[in-house]
Amino acid sequence: MERLLILSEGRSGDPHYGKTGRGVLAYGTRPVVAILDSTRVGESENGIPIVATVEDALRLEPTTALVGVATQGGRFPPAWRELLRSAISSGLHVENGLHEFLGDDEELAALAAGHGVELRDLRRPPAGLDVPTGTNLELRVQTVLTVGSDCAIGKMTVSLELDREARERGLASRFVPTGQTGIAIAGWGIAVDAVISDFLAGAGERLVVEGHERGGELLFVEGQGSLIHPAYSGVTLGLVHGTAPHVFVLCHLAGQTEIEGYPGQPIPPLRQLVELHERISLPARRARVAAVALNTRLLHENEARAAIRAAEAETGLPADDPVRFAPARILDAVLAALR
Amino acid sequence: MERLLILSEGRSGDPHYGKTGRGVLAYGTRPVVAILDSTRVGESENGIPIVATVEDALRLEPTTALVGVATQGGRFPPAWRELLRSAISSGLHVENGLHEFLGDDEELAALAAGHGVELRDLRRPPAGLDVPTGTNLELRVQTVLTVGSDCAIGKMTVSLELDREARERGLASRFVPTGQTGIAIAGWGIAVDAVISDFLAGAGERLVVEGHERGGELLFVEGQGSLIHPAYSGVTLGLVHGTAPHVFVLCHLAGQTEIEGYPGQPIPPLRQLVELHERISLPARRARVAAVALNTRLLHENEARAAIRAAEAETGLPADDPVRFAPARILDAVLAALR
Repeated sequence: MERLLILSEGRSGDPHYGKTGRGVLAYGTRPVVAILDSTRVGESENGIPIVATVEDALRLEPTTALVGVATQGGRFPPAWRELLRSAISSGLHVENGLHEFLGDDEELAALAAGHGVELRDLRRPPAGLDVPTGTNLELRVQTVLTVGSDCAIGKMTVSLELDREARERGLASRFVPTGQTGIAIAGWGIAVDAVISDFLAGAGERLVVEGHERGGELLFVEGQGSLIHPAYSGVTLGLVHGTAPHVFVLCHLAGQTEIEGYPGQPIPPLRQLVELHERISLPARRARVAAVALNTRLLHENEARAAIRAAEAETGLPADDPVRFAPARILDAVLAALR
Repeated sequence: MERLLILSEGRSGDPHYGKTGRGVLAYGTRPVVAILDSTRVGESENGIPIVATVEDALRLEPTTALVGVATQGGRFPPAWRELLRSAISSGLHVENGLHEFLGDDEELAALAAGHGVELRDLRRPPAGLDVPTGTNLELRVQTVLTVGSDCAIGKMTVSLELDREARERGLASRFVPTGQTGIAIAGWGIAVDAVISDFLAGAGERLVVEGHERGGELLFVEGQGSLIHPAYSGVTLGLVHGTAPHVFVLCHLAGQTEIEGYPGQPIPPLRQLVELHERISLPARRARVAAVALNTRLLHENEARAAIRAAEAETGLPADDPVRFAPARILDAVLAALR
């Protein structure tokens, strides 16, 4: 059994850039023995100690260091190379979800070979991708895609919560990972943002087919980006058309009014987002938004409940915060829409 | 000066799969000495002879063989390798726009090295791509993007015709290539469908910046795919958001009602396409559709004129077939919308 050291230097508490580490902590199946973040030494997270160096973590006997941060554009800041060398030299496998592949780095690859450890690049696309064939329109499977108003607002988490709740109800549900964190959690998947653009929809289709082959009759596909995001909208639309969902769950960070990092790019009202997604869904597989999953982490509880009521009033759809409260209402709405 | 042999075996007359060869024939600046297509030997196209083999073309002294076909998914059919070996062995450079890169093929690369010729992969992305920075929102440039109801219906051609007409009127206009054919024609550009999905919009931004650096104050960006295309919509939306056009020209093949190759995927009415594009344009740079460019090649002339009038009545926008008739009306509408 692997034991993880999560490398989250400087960003272990960051819900955006630290999301890989946080996602694996919350939903992963492999035990986490330590988190590396020299800016928070001595603290702990979910009972897991935060350490300053790889050496400090070794007494907890990790087998694998997971790069727990995402950087904009997916490249390694120079200071990180030292950390990676240290992990490899300490005999740890390294799992990396950035666009920069460790396996293609001659120095690190040689170091890893010398220490007999693996460099696993979670974002490396599988061989043989192509354009979609339409297969997933013929599968006996029901597909639910999370979409949203921005990146890093909880689409993956909502998919994971709904999948868990569905499995607890005895349904043949599977979480379908489409990004590096989802892959680190579930152990399979394709990071669709690292696929060449022409094969985006084809990758989405393949993921649905694989989710079905893995026993899923109900699939919760992790959404990516946003149709209204200036940098990542292409990934979103390719995934919408490639996975051909029956139902969307619309995710939104309550209180957010502009795309993060893109001033002047407002988030339109939720009812407009609902209509935009329904309208752009494949004509051959029209999808409805079944519910609104509101991320209320910026709000006090009474404000959160008010925001949920407001979202329901605005959209006419069931809304809830499936992490803070419970995923049951959202799942009920999804199952009702699939009927 | 290079002299081209266009390799279009079996597809020299095909407006879809033969579009690279046909585009270079119509708009390229390098002379074409022969077209290879053993199914049409003895015929000619625009006065250029069609030959059966590379050997037959050698008396016309080509310097470079251009792969003139596009295949679905961008891979080489096995029979093509023989043709490529023949071109390389005859001392020709080879220019290739498919997703399969010749330079990465050990056998062909060794053969090319042995014969002292270059293998140029037009779709290979440049180094250093990243997410967009917002730069192109600050440039003093006016950007026009062609969009459409399907692939391979003439978006590139419309951009080329409008650019030519604008330059003839003395405007500082540039054609901005975003695909392999455009690159083969213009000698620069990025094939955005071969870029990894996360950097799609960043590639679009870089192309606008480069078009400006090349002296363009008015840019006609070659559009790709369609927002409603099941396989390629992600590329389209990434390009829409990355290039941040001021104005769209909506292209449509008159009479077409379904996406080619995707039965059950209807093309919605033009007025809905106009609204969808305007609505999905960046909030920080709202774009209007200025005109409809109708490809009327399937119609007789009187039907073509009727289709143009019908498109105008439906959308309330100027419409024309800029290839069959003239680009002037469309350009007038674009310039009026940019004012």
